[in-house]
Amino acid sequence: METEIWETLEDLVATGDEQAVTAELDSLPPFALAHALDHLSDESRQKLFELLPPDQAADLVAQISDVQAAAVMEDLEPGDAAAILFELPLHEQADLIGELEDEDAEAILAAMDQQTAAAVRELATYDEDVAGSIMTTEALVFDQRLSVGDVVRDLQTHSDRYRDYQVQYLHVRDRTGRLTGIVQLRDLLLNRGATPLLEILRRNPVVVGEFTPLDQVADLFEAHDFLALPVVNAEGVLEGLIRRDDLEAALGDRSDADYRKTQGIVGGEELRTLPYLTRSRRRLSWLSINVFLNIIAASVIAAYQETLAAVIALAAFLPIISDMSGCSGNQAVAVSMREMALGVARPSDVFRVLRNEVSLALLNGVVLGALVGVVGWVWQGNAYLGLVVGTALALNTLIAVAIGGSVPLLLKGWDLDPALASGPILTTITDLCGFFLTLSLATALLTKLV
Amino acid sequence: METEIWETLEDLVATGDEQAVTAELDSLPPFALAHALDHLSDESRQKLFELLPPDQAADLVAQISDVQAAAVMEDLEPGDAAAILFELPLHEQADLIGELEDEDAEAILAAMDQQTAAAVRELATYDEDVAGSIMTTEALVFDQRLSVGDVVRDLQTHSDRYRDYQVQYLHVRDRTGRLTGIVQLRDLLLNRGATPLLEILRRNPVVVGEFTPLDQVADLFEAHDFLALPVVNAEGVLEGLIRRDDLEAALGDRSDADYRKTQGIVGGEELRTLPYLTRSRRRLSWLSINVFLNIIAASVIAAYQETLAAVIALAAFLPIISDMSGCSGNQAVAVSMREMALGVARPSDVFRVLRNEVSLALLNGVVLGALVGVVGWVWQGNAYLGLVVGTALALNTLIAVAIGGSVPLLLKGWDLDPALASGPILTTITDLCGFFLTLSLATALLTKLV
Repeated sequence: METEIWETLEDLVATGDEQAVTAELDSLPPFALAHALDHLSDESRQKLFELLPPDQAADLVAQISDVQAAAVMEDLEPGDAAAILFELPLHEQADLIGELEDEDAEAILAAMDQQTAAAVRELATYDEDVAGSIMTTEALVFDQRLSVGDVVRDLQTHSDRYRDYQVQYLHVRDRTGRLTGIVQLRDLLLNRGATPLLEILRRNPVVVGEFTPLDQVADLFEAHDFLALPVVNAEGVLEGLIRRDDLEAALGDRSDADYRKTQGIVGGEELRTLPYLTRSRRRLSWLSINVFLNIIAASVIAAYQETLAAVIALAAFLPIISDMSGCSGNQAVAVSMREMALGVARPSDVFRVLRNEVSLALLNGVVLGALVGVVGWVWQGNAYLGLVVGTALALNTLIAVAIGGSVPLLLKGWDLDPALASGPILTTITDLCGFFLTLSLATALLTKLV
Repeated sequence: METEIWETLEDLVATGDEQAVTAELDSLPPFALAHALDHLSDESRQKLFELLPPDQAADLVAQISDVQAAAVMEDLEPGDAAAILFELPLHEQADLIGELEDEDAEAILAAMDQQTAAAVRELATYDEDVAGSIMTTEALVFDQRLSVGDVVRDLQTHSDRYRDYQVQYLHVRDRTGRLTGIVQLRDLLLNRGATPLLEILRRNPVVVGEFTPLDQVADLFEAHDFLALPVVNAEGVLEGLIRRDDLEAALGDRSDADYRKTQGIVGGEELRTLPYLTRSRRRLSWLSINVFLNIIAASVIAAYQETLAAVIALAAFLPIISDMSGCSGNQAVAVSMREMALGVARPSDVFRVLRNEVSLALLNGVVLGALVGVVGWVWQGNAYLGLVVGTALALNTLIAVAIGGSVPLLLKGWDLDPALASGPILTTITDLCGFFLTLSLATALLTKLV
């Protein structure tokens, strides 16, 4: 059934019948839409966006993911792309421009009117971890000398425009432009028209700066029930608002990105519609680092070739010990990442985490070591082989869990990205140690093993 | 400096001075609070919650994570825990009760007043993937025969109570209790007191059922600008509301949980303050399955002992091929998980994904195979060894990427949890195939290798 949707759409686009296309699009739920757009051929997708008037194309863009939307924008003429972007809120324009390759972004900005382009450029300059990057600039600001009645009349007059603003609060400024307070819609309701705004103003509102890190913004949203927080510049003038849902979306994106990085998808989100070589290059950049780390670890095996040649059964246990230690270590990484996200663990807690993980690993290491040890013993009928592989796995579990628990905290403390680097560091060290422990123990007990 | 905060708190709790403790708590930002509570000894934490009046203890509970809060509740007397819970919104009570061990939950429910306990029990019965599980039951419902003035007077009279409700919309019911429409606060502002609600009502509002899956709720929020969606039962009576931020929090929790599952943290979130044996048991349940999968894969090595004994250098390449294929496969898993979350990939797309991943893996496999092949050639001075390990890695990359891309879709299609099972399935098959390819190629070319 789902193949039909995009096939229908493709046929309709081919006819060039704008009305029929619009009717079909309107009938689709958003998830079906993303799926259908992803399945269209590149030419059909481009033709679809050229066919629709800019405001309808913008509606479509708002409902698909940023990567998908960016891919569409890159295929369009810069002028068409600029016309579509113009229909979106400024911070979404900036998000999309930020997703584009630099030259595509420049071409589209050049096709925009100068004022919008300047505003988008400014929003796009914010680092993705600070308040400015997710603020919306559409806020209602009133002079503090107005009355409740003045404001209600203004709201009534411009209600069509304000409807798009998702108004939660009114912001009030003094004559220099500085934000002096906030008025809740409820307070407009519960006061007579003649009441001056100054009387119902909540003064000294909680504000954030443009460059406040998103973590701190999240703390404020957690501590208060606000639906939105004002963003002010150094002079105290309102620059924009951060809505709770925009913040949560940004934090959700970050946590998704962290997951992808732990799995080796780096350099930005990947969809299968992205160009072949871009995807290959990004994946290889991560894989080729891993190849070299793997070769370093495997060089330990090369150094113990005589022992291995004497007890060839050990070769079957090396990958088991390497993989199991990696699994145990990754569990500790996941717990540390989560505890950092919740704020219960910090770089300075590394010794507490180490103590805690080591005590857990003592039990788990013994259990896993015993399991694998018994397998080695029974398979080769040699208790010493079981002893060697079991002991090596138990000790290496201890090492892996200690490293897995502490490395994310240390990386964070050094301002490196724990999601990106914890995995490769963990596997390289645990492989090295696992191979060394197994083969050096075996060398020591060689007379009992052959 | 951060050690000081919890030490100060611990000392204050020991003195039993409620006022001093409250003052200290009030001075802490939320993240410092979570961190400090996590660092207190179990006894101090329990004493702190016993010391505070229930409403202040509830404020504290609202600011820490559910797992942390559940751990605290389990340590308290059921009566004390019930008194604290009573101060929280119903859906948060239900969330917390859901986090507790069954017997602790029952003890606390038994200590609650019957009516609340029944309401909490009902909310806690919803499956965590449906609308009912995240709805708040605090909504403002007015009879449709009232006027704007009636409603404004009621809001004014009960403004203290309603303040906690985070009111976004007013809900309007007919005389049978059925939800007939929604009134925006703005519309109350812009109409005179005598206007009947019926005149400004937005009829046929978008609603969801109690058992609507959260994915569908997310679609609705994505398609519309609503801050909240009404939840109705089969009779069309309002049961509660879903707020946009509660939904995003729930979806964020789910995506976090998925990440933890891929890293082997199963059976629920883990904090290092949880009981030692619980943590060990949960981690081992996952690890012991992996041990057996690893042993199955390693049995291929055992079957080729003669080849290995003849070309002992191969032993160093087996872990490299196993680990690199795992990395490539995990990249494909991450892309499939993300495409499913965005709705651009579905179980029925498995052939498209396969075709796409295989074409990418052809290039990446050749690059990685060449890298490792050259290492093998140069190290042993034998081009055939390079050929064997390079070809094995190239072919196994193809297999790993095909499996990694398609297994999440297949598991989802069979209603299994792709986050939980994709990793172990992937590594077991790629290890099996990698060992088999390397050792059978080596066996075929054995005369050239020795």
